[in-house]
This record gives sequence, structure tokens and C-alpha cells, in this order.
Amino acid sequence: MTKSSYGLFFEDFTLGMVIDHATPRTVTTGERALYHALYPSRFSLFSSDEVARKMGYHESPLDDLLVFHVVFGSTVPDISLNALANLGYAECVFHKPVFAGDTLQSRSEVIGLKQNSSGESGVVYVRTTGINQRGETVLSFVRWVMVVKRTPESPAPVTAIPELINSLQSTSYRPVLYDNYDFMASGSQTCWEDYAVGEKIDHIDGVTIEEAEHMMATRLWQNTAKVHFNMQAPNKFNQRLIYGGHIISLVRSLSYNGLANTQTILGINGGTHCAPCFAGDTIYAWSEVLEKAPIQGSPAGALRLRSVGVKNNPADKYPYKQG
Amino acid sequence: MTKSSYGLFFEDFTLGMVIDHATPRTVTTGERALYHALYPSRFSLFSSDEVARKMGYHESPLDDLLVFHVVFGSTVPDISLNALANLGYAECVFHKPVFAGDTLQSRSEVIGLKQNSSGESGVVYVRTTGINQRGETVLSFVRWVMVVKRTPESPAPVTAIPELINSLQSTSYRPVLYDNYDFMASGSQTCWEDYAVGEKIDHIDGVTIEEAEHMMATRLWQNTAKVHFNMQAPNKFNQRLIYGGHIISLVRSLSYNGLANTQTILGINGGTHCAPCFAGDTIYAWSEVLEKAPIQGSPAGALRLRSVGVKNNPADKYPYKQG
Amino acid sequence: MTKSSYGLFFEDFTLGMVIDHATPRTVTTGERALYHALYPSRFSLFSSDEVARKMGYHESPLDDLLVFHVVFGSTVPDISLNALANLGYAECVFHKPVFAGDTLQSRSEVIGLKQNSSGESGVVYVRTTGINQRGETVLSFVRWVMVVKRTPESPAPVTAIPELINSLQSTSYRPVLYDNYDFMASGSQTCWEDYAVGEKIDHIDGVTIEEAEHMMATRLWQNTAKVHFNMQAPNKFNQRLIYGGHIISLVRSLSYNGLANTQTILGINGGTHCAPCFAGDTIYAWSEVLEKAPIQGSPAGALRLRSVGVKNNPADKYPYKQG
Repeated sequence: MTKSSYGLFFEDFTLGMVIDHATPRTVTTGERALYHALYPSRFSLFSSDEVARKMGYHESPLDDLLVFHVVFGSTVPDISLNALANLGYAECVFHKPVFAGDTLQSRSEVIGLKQNSSGESGVVYVRTTGINQRGETVLSFVRWVMVVKRTPESPAPVTAIPELINSLQSTSYRPVLYDNYDFMASGSQTCWEDYAVGEKIDHIDGVTIEEAEHMMATRLWQNTAKVHFNMQAPNKFNQRLIYGGHIISLVRSLSYNGLANTQTILGINGGTHCAPCFAGDTIYAWSEVLEKAPIQGSPAGALRLRSVGVKNNPADKYPYKQG
Repeated sequence: MTKSSYGLFFEDFTLGMVIDHATPRTVTTGERALYHALYPSRFSLFSSDEVARKMGYHESPLDDLLVFHVVFGSTVPDISLNALANLGYAECVFHKPVFAGDTLQSRSEVIGLKQNSSGESGVVYVRTTGINQRGETVLSFVRWVMVVKRTPESPAPVTAIPELINSLQSTSYRPVLYDNYDFMASGSQTCWEDYAVGEKIDHIDGVTIEEAEHMMATRLWQNTAKVHFNMQAPNKFNQRLIYGGHIISLVRSLSYNGLANTQTILGINGGTHCAPCFAGDTIYAWSEVLEKAPIQGSPAGALRLRSVGVKNNPADKYPYKQG
Repeated sequence: MTKSSYGLFFEDFTLGMVIDHATPRTVTTGERALYHALYPSRFSLFSSDEVARKMGYHESPLDDLLVFHVVFGSTVPDISLNALANLGYAECVFHKPVFAGDTLQSRSEVIGLKQNSSGESGVVYVRTTGINQRGETVLSFVRWVMVVKRTPESPAPVTAIPELINSLQSTSYRPVLYDNYDFMASGSQTCWEDYAVGEKIDHIDGVTIEEAEHMMATRLWQNTAKVHFNMQAPNKFNQRLIYGGHIISLVRSLSYNGLANTQTILGINGGTHCAPCFAGDTIYAWSEVLEKAPIQGSPAGALRLRSVGVKNNPADKYPYKQG
């Protein structure tokens, strides 16, 4: 028997199975500094304790996506080490802010299973929660991945596909502190009132990615998927594939230019990795305002946005102008 | 109307205009660790809380140039996003030490303007100050940049060129704590008395730069200039240009070997980026002692130094031997 | 006289000579975060304050090898700047855990000298100790390096070769806290009882190394050896050589997969850098259990392991299966 793990295969998952993932992680100002070195984020709430204090926090929380990556990363050795594809995300809710010194622990429940017609793989749906050292849920999301089978002959499970909501309801929003909001510190006077449904925003800047950067980021999140780190691990692209979450953070950070006052991600209704990214690619981004909603008892309002990253051809951003 | 910013153009600047730059930044031991990962600095004051305590500080301050980069970086989105060249620095004074946990905020005043004869660009002179969370000025410097015009037809401003002092006066020096100075910890017995005006020092070592390194550094300082990050952003070199401040930090760090007891930068009288640097370049450095001055009431003395970085051909250092 | 240092040459060392190395270093959560960005470590003790508290520590200590690198790095400017080869390690003992905020100072004693028959170089044996701010020894090790002579004509020292023990005795083990050990957090149920002498473990994963990564790591440890940083520094490989300790940390981190509950390194009996590593190499690892020993009064037991890193050809791991 080997002591080392090859991860779970499709037939290892059963409906309702709960996995407490290894390696609880204490996140610190060290992780925060690395986040700023790896992504061009300039949101004032995550850059300044003073700004955060004015808004009503005791200090600056850690970037919502940093929390996402840490919680996600620790699920990889169990859920997606043998994934052929990361198919989608849904119902991602950021329940509470996370601060330097907090310890995050992840747990996943299998909420759906569907074997592929080939019989060689299947789709696993999990709901993952990130829990802090006080037992409070700080993050939850659903993701589904296509996982290979260890032996194609293993019997197929009963198909179960979870019903997922399309869009987070405002009743699920966490309380967001925006007291004494400082527009000078944030770098933009643009308010919730200034955005119109259907409006599209060019985030202008582009960032070229290096191998060392995406590997340092992905390793920091303790994500162990071979395709990100091992030039020799066989994949159809014949090179290291960049962790999709690295691109999400790049796009979110680029979106500062045009969305400087969208400090807080309340939730993510869905996400797709439309095309693979590799070192040497240059990432650009644009966003569209899909919906606006007031937030009960808050000076802030919610925007439902679609943010899109494109690579290498900045002109790929421009179709949105006719959108 | 777009919500995203293309930065200011030459005709947007007016004499006396004050800009409070966005994104106040809390600097931590995370930034300190990254500084040590990015630059070969070995100055004991910035490496050890124990050394700093012996010298009279409550803990180790952050490297002076780390403070410079953070203050400088936050001015880029306003001052130099449309700069054709970063022409010079003057009157840079480090007024107070900065410690982990401090929050830095930058403000610039336009102190000079001169349109170029082409009518297509002009020189903007700004005096930038970095202010901590107690409202104390920790850093101030003047820089001048050549900024492109949005429309060449815009009228030229009245020419105003500030008078700048050539050399920081000793009355401007901040109090520097050097109690119980530990020469063993610093790594060198060479004292102020040992340096002679005109003496030149070879800093010996060379460092080859990688794309990931200079981009991580420059991003950490929230410097958003396109030429540093985007392989596709057009520039005459057809590749990513390294942030000049990255080279300044490399040269200063290399200068440890020969200047190990020059722990504190009191000020920078001037600086020029003589030639562009790119990934793959190897940087060497040498320094010349220009002037010596005692510091009233201090066990330390001041050296006025010229530190020069050269690239790729170590022999470029050697002319100084005939200097 | 030059103020800058070219390091010590073979004839500068004398038996019994003690060197207090420069640049005491305060290590923080910033160094911890960088360790996680640079190495794929997932040991729960070094990832989570909560796990550490359950085990009996007041917070998560810093990775043992991080301590090794900082102590080792500060010896390089004195001991091995003119080394032709790092020949070996022995008697490495981790005496006490190190926590964020501790300051490490290194001291070396020359315990052996042997000039080579060529007369152009010699072997220097040093015992290095790392000491914290309370004067406690946290780490000690012996290493021997082949150092070039400044002038081949210098007289040879009397040959003195230290006697070194082959294997750390259990009486030298530091007390290790493993109260309320959390196997869920560590990610593996495999206990000391489950390992058999002679057993070999494949750590499965591979990691490709980039120039920026090994240079950032090596710089973080203030290791100044030219061959790691300067593409132009002449060496027989005509490229930057990766610091051997970088590979040690990669192998140890990869060994998590199969040795997840070997949280603490008590000591290192010996180590050899069998082949050089360069950027672009992909590192794999396997381990063999050499010996098992109970630890008096502890719920944990000791394993003596041989961990081997191989590069580029994963098949190089497989001979161990016939071992």
C-alpha cells in the first residue's frame, strides 16, 4: 500500500459524502502583500487599515478572492486532482470578512453526480464552505468538475443533478460597512447611481503573465493540481496551464479601473473558464452592468456585473461596444 | 462617458494644482519580506528588530526605498500614466522612519510646467509628499516627467520652472538613531572616518533580472505604468521596460558591499535613468564619495554619495578606477 | 584599500576561529507566506495557528527548513563566497522551534581544515549555530566546503578533520509537542506504526523551477553566492546554478504526499547535492524509511528517512521499487 495520495476518482464520490479538507490555513499580512505583488489590485478597502476603519471595520480585511483561493485550493487534493475539466461555479456567497490572523478550514459536500456516456468519467457537484476559527462560515460555493474514473468498469452512480439558483438574492447579502466612505482614497467619484444596466466598461490595462507568477500564486493557495506546476505532466496543451482563479483575480484587479468603488464582492453567480491561459499571455478585461439592486439599510447598492477577461488581442474587448 | 481612467494629460495640469492620490497603503512585514526576496539588501537596521532596538528604534523600520516606492507608485495613475519619460528627481528627503503597520498616503503639487517646442507634450514638475496615518510627512521629493498632450491644439500654459536646490542641507536631516551601534551585526568595521572624498567603491556583485521579479515589485508598489506590465503596450523598445525604481533598489542593495554602515538614506539630491533596463540584464554598481559632513549631536556622519548602476558589461564599472 | 568584501579564502581560515556572521534577521509571517509561495508545503503545523495550538504550541512555528535557510544564508558571505563546492552536511539538529518575530543570528566555528593536493584550494569544516534573541541555540549543523586559495603559495595549514557522528542520537531530540494530534487537519491517517524499515514512498508530484523563483528564495535567505544570481558570473555550467537548499525545500515539501504526519524535522544526519539544478528542471522525490525509534515520553515516534530528489526523468524515481 502506498502512503501517498493520487486523489479521489469519480467512483470514490457518493451523494451526500462530506469531506473535511486537510491543511487549515492561517492567513496573514504576508499573504496580503503577496496578493498585491501578484495582482494589480488597488481597491482601497484591501490596501489601507485607515480606509477600512473609516468604513467601520477594525482593520483592512483580506481580499475576497484571496479567501476564495485559499478555501478552493485546499479542496483540490480531494476533489479535483483527477479532474479533466473545471466545468462551472455557482451560488458563491462571501458571508463574512476575513482578517489577517484568521484560520480557514474547508469542507465539501457532494451534492450531485452524473456519469458521462463514455463511462470513463463523470461530473461531480460539490458545495464547499470555508469556515473560520470561530466556526463561522465565511464563504460557500458550488462547483462541478469532470473527474476521471479509476476503472471504467465501476458501476455508474444514480444520476443526481442539484438545482442551483441563477442569481444571489439580496436577502443573502452580508452586511457591508460603508460608513464615511472616502471617495478620494478609493480613486473614483463614480457611485452606484452612475451605473446603468446594460452599460459596458473597458478596464483598459493589460497584464502579461509569467510562469513564476502563476505558480507562486497557485502554490500560495496550496492548490496541488499537476497541470499548473509540472511542465512534464501530460496535458493536451503540452505546457503548464494557468489556474483559472489566477485569471479571475487578474480580471477583478484590472476591473478597479472603472469599478473602483465596488470594494466588496457579495457573491459570484457563475463563472466559466472559456479558454486556457498560459505564461506569455496578456490579459485584458471589460465588464457589463447586468442588474442594479438597492441594499436595505445600507448607503451602498449592489451591482450585478459580468466581467470578461480576454487574452492577447485587445481588440477582442471591443465587440462589447456594439453590445 | 467612460468610468475608467486614462490618466492625466499635459493640458490637465495647472500650476499650484494639488492632487491627493488614491489608495492609501498600509505597509507590513509582508512588504518587508518581499523587499528582501526582490532585492539583495543586507543592511542590518532593516533586517533585525534587535539591531534596531539597540540603535534606539522600537523595532526595525521599513527600508527607506520601500517607502519611496509606495509613495511614488501611488502617484503614477495621476502623474505619469501618460509620461513619455521620467526626466529627473530632486530634493528627496526622508523625514521620518516608517514602521510595519503604518499607512502611507501621497499628495502631489504641480510646481512647474513647460510645454515642449513640438507642442505635443510638456514637462510637469511635481512635489510629492508621503504622509503617515498621524498626518506626519515621512517623505518628500520633486520629480519632473514629460507628459503627452491629449490634443496638440490645447493652449500652452505659462512656463514656470521651479528653482531646486542641488544638495540637501544638513539642517534638513532627520534625527537618526545610532546608539550602541553594532558593527558585528552590520558586517563591516568601516566607519564614516574611513571614507575619503573622491574615493570610489566597487560593489562587486551582479544580479540578473527576471520579468516576474520586476513586475511583482512594481505591482507591489501599485505603480500602474503600462510599459512595465504589458508586453503588447507599444513602446520603442518593443518589450517591457523595467521600472527605474527597481534599478535604484538593486543598486542601493548591491552597495551594501562597501557601504554596509550607510544604513539610513537622509535624502536623494538627484537621479537619472541613463539607459533603459530589461529582463535578462545583469546589474552591477559602484559609488563615489562626493562630500562628507558631520551631523550635529549624532555619533554618525553624513556621506554624499553618487551610486551608479551599469548593466551587462562589468568592465563598465572600471572606468571609475581612473576617475 | 577596498571597503567591499570578496569573502574569505582558504588561507584566511584557522582552526578554532569563530565568526559571528553579519545581519541578524527577524523572521515574520511575511517570510512564512513567501515560503508557501515558493515551495508546495502542506504540513498542517506550519500552515495553521489553530493546528499548532491543539498540538501545544502557542502559535504555528516557522518551517524548520526556513530556519535552516536563514541561518545558512547569513554564513555564505564569510564561509562560502569563494567555495568551489558545497561538499556535505552533518550533525544538523533543530533544537527549538522558531516563531514569527524571532531574530536569528548565526555563528560558525572552524572545526577542520585540509588543503587539497593541488595546493590551490582546501576543505573548510565549520560548525554553525543559529541563535535566537534570547541567546538560545535553535539550530546547529556542520558543513564542509571546498574553498579556493587567494594565493596558491600560501602555506598549508595543519590538516585537521573532525570526527562526525553518523546519526543523531535520540537523546538529542528536542521535545516535540504532538498533543491532541489532528489527523484530519494533517490530511493523512498514516501513523508512525504504519511505516516499515526499508519501505519506499513515491511522493508522486513534480515541480518545474523558474529562475525568478529560486532567486527570490535564495535572496530572501540573504545568501549572496554569485552563481545563483549572476548569469554572467563564470561557472562551468554557463548558467545560474540553483541553491542546493532550494532543492532540499522542494523535496521536503513534495514529501508531504506520503509523509504528511512527519511535521517536525528533528535533525539531518547528512546530505549531498548529487547533481546541479537549473531553471527549467522538474523535480520529483521519493523517500526510504531507514530506521524507526520511539521517543521517550512522546506520543510521536521518530523515523530516519532518506529523501531523494530526482530531476526531469520521473522514471529515475522508479528504481527504488526494486530497492
